[in-house]
Amino acid sequence: MNREGGYSVGLIVQKYGGTSVGDIERIRNVARRVIETKEKGNQVVVVVSAMAGETDRLLSLAHQVSKTPNERELDVILATGEQVSIGLLSLAIQEMGHKAISFTGFQVGIQTDNAHTKARITSINAQRVEQALKQEAIAIVAGFQGITEEEDVTTLGRGGSDLTGVAMALALQADVCEIYTDVDGVYTADPNLVPEARKLSKISYDEMLEMASLGAKVLQSRSVEFAKNHGVPIHVRSSFNNNPGTMVVKEDADMERVVVSGVTYNKNEAKISILGVPDKPGIAAQLFGKVAEDHIVVDMIIQNISQDGHTDISFTVPKPDLRRTLEIVNEITGEIGAERVISDEKISKVSIVGVGMRSHSGVASAMFTCLGKEGINIQMISTSEIKISCIIDSKYTELAVRALHDVFKLGEGGTSEES
Amino acid sequence: MNREGGYSVGLIVQKYGGTSVGDIERIRNVARRVIETKEKGNQVVVVVSAMAGETDRLLSLAHQVSKTPNERELDVILATGEQVSIGLLSLAIQEMGHKAISFTGFQVGIQTDNAHTKARITSINAQRVEQALKQEAIAIVAGFQGITEEEDVTTLGRGGSDLTGVAMALALQADVCEIYTDVDGVYTADPNLVPEARKLSKISYDEMLEMASLGAKVLQSRSVEFAKNHGVPIHVRSSFNNNPGTMVVKEDADMERVVVSGVTYNKNEAKISILGVPDKPGIAAQLFGKVAEDHIVVDMIIQNISQDGHTDISFTVPKPDLRRTLEIVNEITGEIGAERVISDEKISKVSIVGVGMRSHSGVASAMFTCLGKEGINIQMISTSEIKISCIIDSKYTELAVRALHDVFKLGEGGTSEES
Repeated sequence: MNREGGYSVGLIVQKYGGTSVGDIERIRNVARRVIETKEKGNQVVVVVSAMAGETDRLLSLAHQVSKTPNERELDVILATGEQVSIGLLSLAIQEMGHKAISFTGFQVGIQTDNAHTKARITSINAQRVEQALKQEAIAIVAGFQGITEEEDVTTLGRGGSDLTGVAMALALQADVCEIYTDVDGVYTADPNLVPEARKLSKISYDEMLEMASLGAKVLQSRSVEFAKNHGVPIHVRSSFNNNPGTMVVKEDADMERVVVSGVTYNKNEAKISILGVPDKPGIAAQLFGKVAEDHIVVDMIIQNISQDGHTDISFTVPKPDLRRTLEIVNEITGEIGAERVISDEKISKVSIVGVGMRSHSGVASAMFTCLGKEGINIQMISTSEIKISCIIDSKYTELAVRALHDVFKLGEGGTSEES
Repeated sequence: MNREGGYSVGLIVQKYGGTSVGDIERIRNVARRVIETKEKGNQVVVVVSAMAGETDRLLSLAHQVSKTPNERELDVILATGEQVSIGLLSLAIQEMGHKAISFTGFQVGIQTDNAHTKARITSINAQRVEQALKQEAIAIVAGFQGITEEEDVTTLGRGGSDLTGVAMALALQADVCEIYTDVDGVYTADPNLVPEARKLSKISYDEMLEMASLGAKVLQSRSVEFAKNHGVPIHVRSSFNNNPGTMVVKEDADMERVVVSGVTYNKNEAKISILGVPDKPGIAAQLFGKVAEDHIVVDMIIQNISQDGHTDISFTVPKPDLRRTLEIVNEITGEIGAERVISDEKISKVSIVGVGMRSHSGVASAMFTCLGKEGINIQMISTSEIKISCIIDSKYTELAVRALHDVFKLGEGGTSEES
């Protein structure tokens, strides 16, 4: 990246989400932006989502016909949303005097497996796109969709368009995949909460993965993982201004010098505790096996040490799954003879993330001390190599985020070896 | 066709238009109807249009972006309408416990030429549909769309879904192509105008062609022409009841015995007369050449015999094209020195159609006598082998249609050799 946050002339994949193409005026804005990039001498491939609201409209139609729609047919219906977007964006670019040509998932040869509504990309035959670029056209590719070997239409699930963008960038050996969103990039903390939050000029794939899974909604984990596995550089930036955003790239020595890169929070989980569980082998497996059967994703799990042959198990699930999880848990606690079940929706998960943690000690204790000083009780703790998460009472969320941002000096560039 | 208006068990292609799938409840109705046909032991292939209003919505989106949208991109956008319909109908059938599988134009291998927005079908590879039928599934095919050799999406233009139905019937060697519409079949005259109008149990391709081009909106000419060329039997019937409709089939001796099969009218044309045109070679060519350049379809043309080296030319065009045609005509009349131009929107074309005319004389004079008796002045006359059309003052339309229906005894089965 050069000083202006641009790159030298090359092949750029740009991905625009549903909000960026939400109406005709916004589609025109995207067209102008794409043309600007082209006029700087770049080859440009654009990946677009369905217009905001369109996927929901189509889903609602399908659900009016069937409560549990066949997923092959659902994909046939859903894929039309992106198909309309590529046509409209292509028209808008042509209207401004530039060559553009649209491609659906099948035209661009985005091969996937047969897992309808959540298909995985297996290969991309980018020949038609390459041909379009050679002819000086801007190629517009439908995000979120692909095609199976049997020529059935598939969709890629949540964050699918980001994935299309990154996969196209890989197939074309593009210099960068720009993901346009409604924020300027990745911040050290939510700027709405922390006025001193600083935009990161770059972040490692692993940090981005932690941030994504911790609730920072900038990028879906799947696309970051794909980019990490194949070394595709991602540039997260705003579709509403020209500021350089955040580059998501391979870890480098520079990054490791900073201990903590960002503070995130997630208010969308609920906690369930099962008290007085007989401490016998296989109980946890039985419990979480049943929960998993219902496709409920359990996040943190904590089991205290056993006292008097009984133990307590606590775990968190997404709030919308709380009721169903409690049903399952109550059924099982009866069977296994546990004492009682309590749940709490008023919790929040606050986390610090940074690849520098690997080589720095004392980060966890600094976090706990900080929260303690503010009088915030820590209910659960979970750690990975590059992040530490604490479950706290949700009313302290903002306070905790601000305090941690301050303690790790994120507004000033972060605690580093030199500081 | 047997006594109940059904056919022996076989392979049936059913085509449902936009009104028949206009909302979820109607889609369920179509599903029930399709299943009924299947349960009688038939193999069923269903061709559907976009939900009523959907194509207009998509067109409007495209036109908001570009006044003259690129036709390749327009087709990409328009084709989504039918894609949503096939998915929803397939879901509705599955919801009722039957196997169904949807196919887009490209999946079903409807190959077309490159004439976007009005493509012609060049071939159909029905392999996937045949496979679905073998597996006892109902195959749902998107009407109106196809794919070029280069895998670009095309649409077939007006009446395109009817054409898809007939072409699928040909490719599958189906026993019949049922076209479902909001009327019971083809009538001897518009039943809203003539209470005695009788539903024809069968009609020849040529008669249907004349009726279609004369304004009877039951079937588009293109699909009838295709059916005629390949001998595909069409059954026009209502999607709202189970009455047998009208079979459109090859001419037979039975049909020829009836002189006139039906009376039709068309109020959507306007008349232009150019008076005092210098009678020189090439003038008509110049005039109609210019009009054709603007893609305006001229219907009737009449040129009176020359008097004093000047002549009058009259012709009709669709009403929406009147203004533009007058602009062209006024420009040319200046150049060629014609006297003046007059136009009339208050006209109507009344026609009688019947293959029996070929072998019966006196049909034209019977028509003219009938109109004369009612005091209706004939402004223009045009004839083909199997039809006679007269342009009259539009206020006499209903009167003329009723009188002709009566004179040719259409309510009783028509004038025939025996009568």
